[in-house]
Amino acid sequence: MTEFEIIAHYFTRPSDALLGVGDDCALFSSKKTIAVSTDMLVEKTHFFPGDDPFLLGRKSLSVNLSDMAAMGARPRYALLAISLPVADEAWLQAFSKGFMAQAERYGVALIGGDTTRGPLAVCVHIIGELDAELALRRDGAKPGDEIWVSGHLGDAALALAHLNDEIRLTDEEAEFCLGALHDPVPRVELGLALSGISRCAIDISDGFCADLSHILEKSIVAAVVEYAALPCSETMEKYRSTRASAILSGGDDYELCFTASPEKSNDVRSIGERLGIRLSKVGKIREGSGLVVLDEAGREMKIGNKGYAHFS
Amino acid sequence: MTEFEIIAHYFTRPSDALLGVGDDCALFSSKKTIAVSTDMLVEKTHFFPGDDPFLLGRKSLSVNLSDMAAMGARPRYALLAISLPVADEAWLQAFSKGFMAQAERYGVALIGGDTTRGPLAVCVHIIGELDAELALRRDGAKPGDEIWVSGHLGDAALALAHLNDEIRLTDEEAEFCLGALHDPVPRVELGLALSGISRCAIDISDGFCADLSHILEKSIVAAVVEYAALPCSETMEKYRSTRASAILSGGDDYELCFTASPEKSNDVRSIGERLGIRLSKVGKIREGSGLVVLDEAGREMKIGNKGYAHFS
Repeated sequence: MTEFEIIAHYFTRPSDALLGVGDDCALFSSKKTIAVSTDMLVEKTHFFPGDDPFLLGRKSLSVNLSDMAAMGARPRYALLAISLPVADEAWLQAFSKGFMAQAERYGVALIGGDTTRGPLAVCVHIIGELDAELALRRDGAKPGDEIWVSGHLGDAALALAHLNDEIRLTDEEAEFCLGALHDPVPRVELGLALSGISRCAIDISDGFCADLSHILEKSIVAAVVEYAALPCSETMEKYRSTRASAILSGGDDYELCFTASPEKSNDVRSIGERLGIRLSKVGKIREGSGLVVLDEAGREMKIGNKGYAHFS
Repeated sequence: MTEFEIIAHYFTRPSDALLGVGDDCALFSSKKTIAVSTDMLVEKTHFFPGDDPFLLGRKSLSVNLSDMAAMGARPRYALLAISLPVADEAWLQAFSKGFMAQAERYGVALIGGDTTRGPLAVCVHIIGELDAELALRRDGAKPGDEIWVSGHLGDAALALAHLNDEIRLTDEEAEFCLGALHDPVPRVELGLALSGISRCAIDISDGFCADLSHILEKSIVAAVVEYAALPCSETMEKYRSTRASAILSGGDDYELCFTASPEKSNDVRSIGERLGIRLSKVGKIREGSGLVVLDEAGREMKIGNKGYAHFS
């Protein structure tokens, strides 16, 4: 198969764009503000050789959908650039199935891309729409805001620790945590629902403390977080005292961390109930700078590495 | 340096976007039709280890600008995803200098991206604007149209043949051809000028015959091309009879191949004169299907491999 056959066979579907796959550019128009983002997943850095291609296809779109969610944008289009060592049809079939099904699930049309030979890497460019004045920006946190987290934190980090033989999970626990690592759920509906309720969000990809710190820096504010309030799965709960770093600094959760004024507290709770997503109030935005995490006794916890950083 | 420091130091500039580098998404708005495209350059596939990072930075944007040119779009924004084995500051400085200077030259604002550890690869997403009804689409060729080519063909392929020890160029010839390979000039101004004159263009990245064939397939037409009319540099002219494949199937030229009705012939010539770009009439669009290239005696030439294809 040439790259043209690969694209035609696996990655071409009808779309509502003015012009989709198959020209020098794709064309679309929008009356709204356009939101764009890109994430690249590279073998051995973001996933392991031999990882399930179906889940990799899904995840490569999910992590980009997560950026849309963190902005409160409705995803519309995607471009997929993929570098492959060989044109392995079984791999391509599974990968494209995972990618395209997730695209359909979230109303995203694949309208372009690039296919090339090289070490395995997947780079997705995602395009969405929003009302600019309702965007969930990193600089939108205000002193007095409450800090919220969706879902639960640390499961993906536990899976990594398990894969790296740092801990030994039971089969059932491992299955659950590996699911969180390989198949994160992008919080697109939550991001959309927070329009007008929250002004500030980020998705937790590098680690809770690192990502909340991005909000604090951009918003020029401080935060106090209660460690005990950080939401955990049953599995992670068992490791809460021994592997706090998974909760505080584990990457790949793809949950949303957002802020909202206390008057919006009930609105936030209603959204969580309506969407069936656990939403936990974990702290407060204050004037000043820096992040303080308090343990159950109210003592400041030492946070070593705030989160994942390439080249650190 | 962490990726955050790399981004802040090398890849952050003010822009006219509503929101640029540093949030989950970048935001912009446009009253026009949006054109998007992506190209990924991978070490050992698209460039050699040790290639000049300044030129690689420039080329990684140029090949994407070339897609804008081929659509007749005005480039506006770019996102840059880059995978690096190490955070080599000298390399990053040179690469970003090449990339950012080219961005400035063409009025492109870098508004987002991703930086990760991995084998060297650069994936650029480019975003531009146009009037949809004036787009230079691959399906826009009509029987009777004349076929034009900008600049000259085959120099990049000669450079590759030289690097692969298939031919031996003089130092001066090698310098010229390597310039074409490593530093292609995107024909953005030409693409814009062709609005309303041409309805159909493609950029020659895979090879003249391969790329013209994309037009023929999408437009459901045939073409007859005169080999002697295909434009060559002085250097390539010396190899016209011995290395026809460089002209017909050599990739990486990044010239435009476009069609226009014969009544527009003088308009096309005027554009070439105004922009100082050689524009050559090389053939005709006919009814039917397939591409015929005639030699100087009017005999049909055998075209083996029409152009570069990954995985072929």
